[in-house]
Amino acid sequence: MTISKIATRNKMTASLNMDKIFAETADPKNISFGMGLPDKTIFPDQALKTSFMNTFNNQGPDIFQYHSTQGPVALRNKIVSLVKKYYHIDVNGSNIILTQGGQQAIDIVGRTFLNKNDHIVVEGPTYMGALEAFDGYEPIYHEVNVEHDGMDMTVLEQILSETPNIKFVYTIPDFQNPTGATMSLAKRKTLIQLAEKYDFYIVEDSPYRYLRYSGQEEPSLADLDTNGRVILISSFSKILSPALRTGWLIANDELTSIFLSVKAALDVQPSHINLMAIDDFLEHHNIDRHIAKINTLYREKCLAMCDNLDKYLPEKATYIRPEGGFFVWVTLPESFDTTNLLLDSILQDANVVYVPSELQYASRSIKNKFRLNFTNSSYEQIETGIKKLSEALEAVLQLS
Amino acid sequence: MTISKIATRNKMTASLNMDKIFAETADPKNISFGMGLPDKTIFPDQALKTSFMNTFNNQGPDIFQYHSTQGPVALRNKIVSLVKKYYHIDVNGSNIILTQGGQQAIDIVGRTFLNKNDHIVVEGPTYMGALEAFDGYEPIYHEVNVEHDGMDMTVLEQILSETPNIKFVYTIPDFQNPTGATMSLAKRKTLIQLAEKYDFYIVEDSPYRYLRYSGQEEPSLADLDTNGRVILISSFSKILSPALRTGWLIANDELTSIFLSVKAALDVQPSHINLMAIDDFLEHHNIDRHIAKINTLYREKCLAMCDNLDKYLPEKATYIRPEGGFFVWVTLPESFDTTNLLLDSILQDANVVYVPSELQYASRSIKNKFRLNFTNSSYEQIETGIKKLSEALEAVLQLS
Repeated sequence: MTISKIATRNKMTASLNMDKIFAETADPKNISFGMGLPDKTIFPDQALKTSFMNTFNNQGPDIFQYHSTQGPVALRNKIVSLVKKYYHIDVNGSNIILTQGGQQAIDIVGRTFLNKNDHIVVEGPTYMGALEAFDGYEPIYHEVNVEHDGMDMTVLEQILSETPNIKFVYTIPDFQNPTGATMSLAKRKTLIQLAEKYDFYIVEDSPYRYLRYSGQEEPSLADLDTNGRVILISSFSKILSPALRTGWLIANDELTSIFLSVKAALDVQPSHINLMAIDDFLEHHNIDRHIAKINTLYREKCLAMCDNLDKYLPEKATYIRPEGGFFVWVTLPESFDTTNLLLDSILQDANVVYVPSELQYASRSIKNKFRLNFTNSSYEQIETGIKKLSEALEAVLQLS
Repeated sequence: MTISKIATRNKMTASLNMDKIFAETADPKNISFGMGLPDKTIFPDQALKTSFMNTFNNQGPDIFQYHSTQGPVALRNKIVSLVKKYYHIDVNGSNIILTQGGQQAIDIVGRTFLNKNDHIVVEGPTYMGALEAFDGYEPIYHEVNVEHDGMDMTVLEQILSETPNIKFVYTIPDFQNPTGATMSLAKRKTLIQLAEKYDFYIVEDSPYRYLRYSGQEEPSLADLDTNGRVILISSFSKILSPALRTGWLIANDELTSIFLSVKAALDVQPSHINLMAIDDFLEHHNIDRHIAKINTLYREKCLAMCDNLDKYLPEKATYIRPEGGFFVWVTLPESFDTTNLLLDSILQDANVVYVPSELQYASRSIKNKFRLNFTNSSYEQIETGIKKLSEALEAVLQLS
């Protein structure tokens, strides 16, 4: 067949053999610290089931009809309250667009701003799904390394001063995916100042903000912004259920109008049934209490993973202890290749899976790190998995 | 704000004032023949509600977890049977990808094939949502007029012979949106032959195929294809419920693999809850019987609209009597501008809404036609609406 007809954008990630890695992750014989899955025991499944029922009973056959592109007003108004509490921002429901998970919100941003070869800044490392979405628009990536307190602002300003017309900076300021790092207040203020000075948008992707296990909350970038420069992305995936496929975008009036046209072109409208069920859930249940319950569980799991890493990880490996979120980021000596190791028999025999760093850098240049998820595994799997993984790492380190 | 940062793709449709038109359509004071809405009285709402319940009861908390990008195997296998019956094709479930409505399937095709300024062929007129999706990739459109029996194949071959590397031809062969025309067998065979001769893919978008009210069925393009050149798009929106937001793509192995990567970048995965509820519905109900019931209702509505058009439409206006689908296409004298009329007080006072032809041509060049939907309105609304619309058209014709 005429594979030559495929657009150039689809060649950017082809070489990474990601399918193989995801297949490993999904294989039930493995302990997977790979994907960012919630613990399914925490889903309020009975309450959600009841909310779906209420929705069908209250709405009648009309629930099965086409509805709006932006999402129902009632749910948008509840999100107004949610983001007021967790992001400390006052927004209008008309500036919220419901999306098919946070992923679609990221794609909408890419599609709105990016011509081929436009310049954007991403963190190094960053959320690999964001790279997949942005790859579709073939931008020129500028990568800024993430320190323990967020993006390196000196490197960022260097890039900004050398590169005219950066379209946006994409950042995950809270419990960053994959490093777990949270951006300090000083850096947040600097980022906002730089946006004014160099005229760019800030894409604040913050689905983990609700999940803090220790330390002090910092203000959201949207809270610090006074000029409509921050586009905020969040989601119900980590605090309610990812299968509901419901995220949202918050932006200024002009951008909201363009985002809505883009959303309509992508898939006409969101899943109204799911949105109305979420609305019913929020009407009848205390989401703050549910989030507190999630925090209690994940705090323990995070601790369990860190304790086991302290106990078993080879001396030459280091990690960042996160204050929240889903992930721990492990660093090995520079010569180490975690992509190759994942496909090597040593790790295959250990039956443990992580996400290698290579996939999480736009530059694909860093291979000696990997991401571990601690929310989805049982305590037993965490202990067994970290022990086996550490033994495999030790074996490889001794060989080299 | 820095609106200058918006990508060029978003400027293509900006001038059309579509928001205004859609607002008119949604205004409850109007009789809307605008959007392509099913009749909500035909939704099997109680059965679907039960299927959602069964899904929650059978799957447990796991239903709320992340799932696969492609969609559940069980549902894909049921779609194998469905397309065997309605499209007469034998496909493997592994070649089916579930999408967020047919719209996302169209967008995935655009994103897979189109670099900026690539050449594609669309029908003139065509589905405006497809134009919105393709606009996102800034192709060069070649428009082929639709005759009563489908695309003008002489014009198509002329374009193909003059234009190297056409990526694909996008066609709606059954009860075309918006003309209602169905492509003849002879033209279907010609199209397949041309695809071989000039090396292009055919995108067969066929969500209305299930809804035939008179005349004889033609083979699907996918059925006639022997070389993996046809990409078939269909959906549950017209035969079950659009709020389920569930369509699908069927393609050859190589394309399926690329489409899956694109789908993952767009929104990670479909709404698993909805897909499992559809699967349960198909397991426990006879979809063919439900489709037959829809056909009985829509046949009557189509007849009612045509009868009223025969009775009231000004002599200078003509229309095509469709054999199925959702739409009737009305043509006025060439000097007529149906976009302007929609915003004019004469039609505003009549409180009737249609979709003007301008939005449905890639070239935006034809303004004297409009599309009417007959499935969503009551018989009373059809009679009142067509009478008032005809009076408004008559008044404008007398002025000119």
